[in-house]
Amino acid sequence: MTILEAAAAIRAKKVSSAELTAESLSGIARLQPRLNAFITVTEERAQERARRTDEELKRGIDRGPLHGIPIAVKDVYCMRGVRTTCGSKLFENHVPDRDAAVVERLEAAGAVITGKANMHELAYGITSSNPHFGFVRNARNPEHIPGGSSGGSGSAVAAGMVFMAMGSDTGGSIRIPASFCGTVGIKPTFGRVSRYGVMPLDFSLDHMGPLTRTVRDAAICLGAIAGHDPRDETSSRQPVPGFLPPGQVSIQGLRIGIPENFYFERVDPEVEAAVRRMASAAANLGATLVPVRVPDIRELNVIARVILLAEASAAMEKYLSRRENFGADVLSLLDQGRLIPATDYVNAQRLRRVKQQEFRRIWRQADCLLTPCTPTPAPKIGQTTITIAGESEDARLASTRLVRAINLLGLPALAVPCGVHTSGLPMGMQLIGRPFTEPLLFRVGAALEDVTGFDKRVPPEC
Amino acid sequence: MTILEAAAAIRAKKVSSAELTAESLSGIARLQPRLNAFITVTEERAQERARRTDEELKRGIDRGPLHGIPIAVKDVYCMRGVRTTCGSKLFENHVPDRDAAVVERLEAAGAVITGKANMHELAYGITSSNPHFGFVRNARNPEHIPGGSSGGSGSAVAAGMVFMAMGSDTGGSIRIPASFCGTVGIKPTFGRVSRYGVMPLDFSLDHMGPLTRTVRDAAICLGAIAGHDPRDETSSRQPVPGFLPPGQVSIQGLRIGIPENFYFERVDPEVEAAVRRMASAAANLGATLVPVRVPDIRELNVIARVILLAEASAAMEKYLSRRENFGADVLSLLDQGRLIPATDYVNAQRLRRVKQQEFRRIWRQADCLLTPCTPTPAPKIGQTTITIAGESEDARLASTRLVRAINLLGLPALAVPCGVHTSGLPMGMQLIGRPFTEPLLFRVGAALEDVTGFDKRVPPEC
Repeated sequence: MTILEAAAAIRAKKVSSAELTAESLSGIARLQPRLNAFITVTEERAQERARRTDEELKRGIDRGPLHGIPIAVKDVYCMRGVRTTCGSKLFENHVPDRDAAVVERLEAAGAVITGKANMHELAYGITSSNPHFGFVRNARNPEHIPGGSSGGSGSAVAAGMVFMAMGSDTGGSIRIPASFCGTVGIKPTFGRVSRYGVMPLDFSLDHMGPLTRTVRDAAICLGAIAGHDPRDETSSRQPVPGFLPPGQVSIQGLRIGIPENFYFERVDPEVEAAVRRMASAAANLGATLVPVRVPDIRELNVIARVILLAEASAAMEKYLSRRENFGADVLSLLDQGRLIPATDYVNAQRLRRVKQQEFRRIWRQADCLLTPCTPTPAPKIGQTTITIAGESEDARLASTRLVRAINLLGLPALAVPCGVHTSGLPMGMQLIGRPFTEPLLFRVGAALEDVTGFDKRVPPEC
Repeated sequence: MTILEAAAAIRAKKVSSAELTAESLSGIARLQPRLNAFITVTEERAQERARRTDEELKRGIDRGPLHGIPIAVKDVYCMRGVRTTCGSKLFENHVPDRDAAVVERLEAAGAVITGKANMHELAYGITSSNPHFGFVRNARNPEHIPGGSSGGSGSAVAAGMVFMAMGSDTGGSIRIPASFCGTVGIKPTFGRVSRYGVMPLDFSLDHMGPLTRTVRDAAICLGAIAGHDPRDETSSRQPVPGFLPPGQVSIQGLRIGIPENFYFERVDPEVEAAVRRMASAAANLGATLVPVRVPDIRELNVIARVILLAEASAAMEKYLSRRENFGADVLSLLDQGRLIPATDYVNAQRLRRVKQQEFRRIWRQADCLLTPCTPTPAPKIGQTTITIAGESEDARLASTRLVRAINLLGLPALAVPCGVHTSGLPMGMQLIGRPFTEPLLFRVGAALEDVTGFDKRVPPEC
């Protein structure tokens, strides 16, 4: 069931929030040993809230489509009185005294949070290390990684444990698990969703967004959490539009940019074919495909790396004296970041502005870009290199290669499943738009999702 | 004569641009040995342009109030084919192949540039060192400094060599010379004026603006140079309003904030009295004086220093191998900046955002702030400490103390002379507004200027 279907079922009295919540909690309990998608389950709190939302509906209080829907949040989101670990030994006993803005807004919309999703250490660790709260496994195939850093969120949604799980995306951390787990994921425009109450990793790169089973579900969730928050000094005052595409969505006349350079290079041939099939489908629906040349994304990725390293170390510096609390991979990245001189960081930020300007030219030609999301499906757990057309590449660098630059540009990007690889694993595409055009991305995503034929059902083994 | 008066005289055929330009050039030549306000005089270019503007007017082409008016630009502004030194030995023979956006716009408005104003080395040196192009002296009293870094601009306008001189302001470099020389100076909102073609010092702190004899002249000049420029990636798309206040300006009902903390502490008693007299004058004109508490400006000044040092070193790093090309003071600052870790810079920028947010609360209470501009009048050349009420302070730190934080906040700030000290030197006040409220600052500035009684005439010895 999607959020929209569940919302209809609740209102038709076919099911209650208490029942959906009980199902979510039992699903989490059943799959936790197999997938390890959660760090904390908020069972009592969820049951209490589910009862309350059921009562509200009886009294005619309807908070909209998320009313009574069980969801999860990545363990970077603070919840008052609930342990919030950020996937780190450092915070294993940390209990915040406040809710993140996203938590506040989701609960105000009636959502029921059944747990805190597992994640890479500090949203920063790499998959090949052994994190404090253990590996998450991919619900589509437990021998494979779910991608990171919002891996628990991706696996939990793919396995049907929750209808939605909030992720966070600093260099691809929503879109990579969406692509690897076969879910939808949106990294909104920088400033669109408040970061108040989220453990910061990278000041100028962190973005908050949902992972869901369908594009329309993602649109509903973004609608609940978008908007200005004076407590987040990077929050935008841009008005919040309607996000949900209509039942019959038209993309007639839209100009969809297909990159001629970079995005289809060193990509698994099946992934390329799947994304190009989606482009043809868009053309069949009346969209115009526009070949575009994009600025040098390799250079953007280098700039992103300097900024990422420096900002993460700035955020974590005060904890670094207790080195035993960090995984070796995270510690190595944090130490690298401390050695970056301010002058290099300043020059990276200057270049970033120039590149943002260069990228703007694309929007004269196209309304959005369609690209692969990850160059391959999910690697196996422990796999450190991937091979495409005979060439080897570091698995982590490969997974971030097509998504990381978009954080630097602050643009909205929507990941949507676009097919199944012969390995049986899902493949993902990425739609990139100009700032604050999430409604357009949802329209294109929904139109293509309706024709992709991707089986969104929970894998039978879950 | 003000720009408005000169513009009227030109149109009444009482004077031609060629005559005004000849006067400007002879004034520069006469006063150069005494004040050293210029690095380069663009005599032939200016004469040619003056002839052309006179011909245009004869043919009925009228480019507005700056048509035919002789002005100067600080030697940070690139002019095609004209040496642009930035006050540095490094660029003593540098001849750019392009015009700065500000130069383009001023010339498109008909202005005639008669020279490039002297300045602190790289807009960064301190007054106590001996710059490559020599000291500028204050036109009000040549034994005193004109303030920096736009000292040549301040002295040239005060001495009547030009009607306006463009300055640049990274930590007070327009407002300090305005205050010390008895001129008006506006540091516009960040992004209001294009920085294209200006030698960069600090990516996130540099602002471009004019120094003039009157507030209305400053408004005319800002009108000519404000607006979006795609070549400057920090340029704002905010629409450009009318800046020029009407002849009869009303400030009835405006709420003028008078800081209760920081801004009147450690200020020369005569300066304090002069600014408070201006506050009373504003109240007499119908404005409401609102006592306000401002956030900790000392902390803002510390943040500004970290950002200033790091960004300046980033901009100049590539030249640092030729150390003999720098003054000892500048070299020391550049070396300091190279040692700042990126993590410190990142934390300073984060804190900056928080402080910007804090500062916004002020605008609920007040429409603008009225403060002293510098705590004292201009120190003597060679004077390294100033004394206020028996307490000594570094002269350079004192001069930037009340202005530097505003660059960090990106707010517009207008410096206006507000009286004459018993030493015979001018004293200045500062009006600070919320982003893009320059028109309001000009209104308040013009209303007070009309009642201040400050003698704007050129000193008799010039």
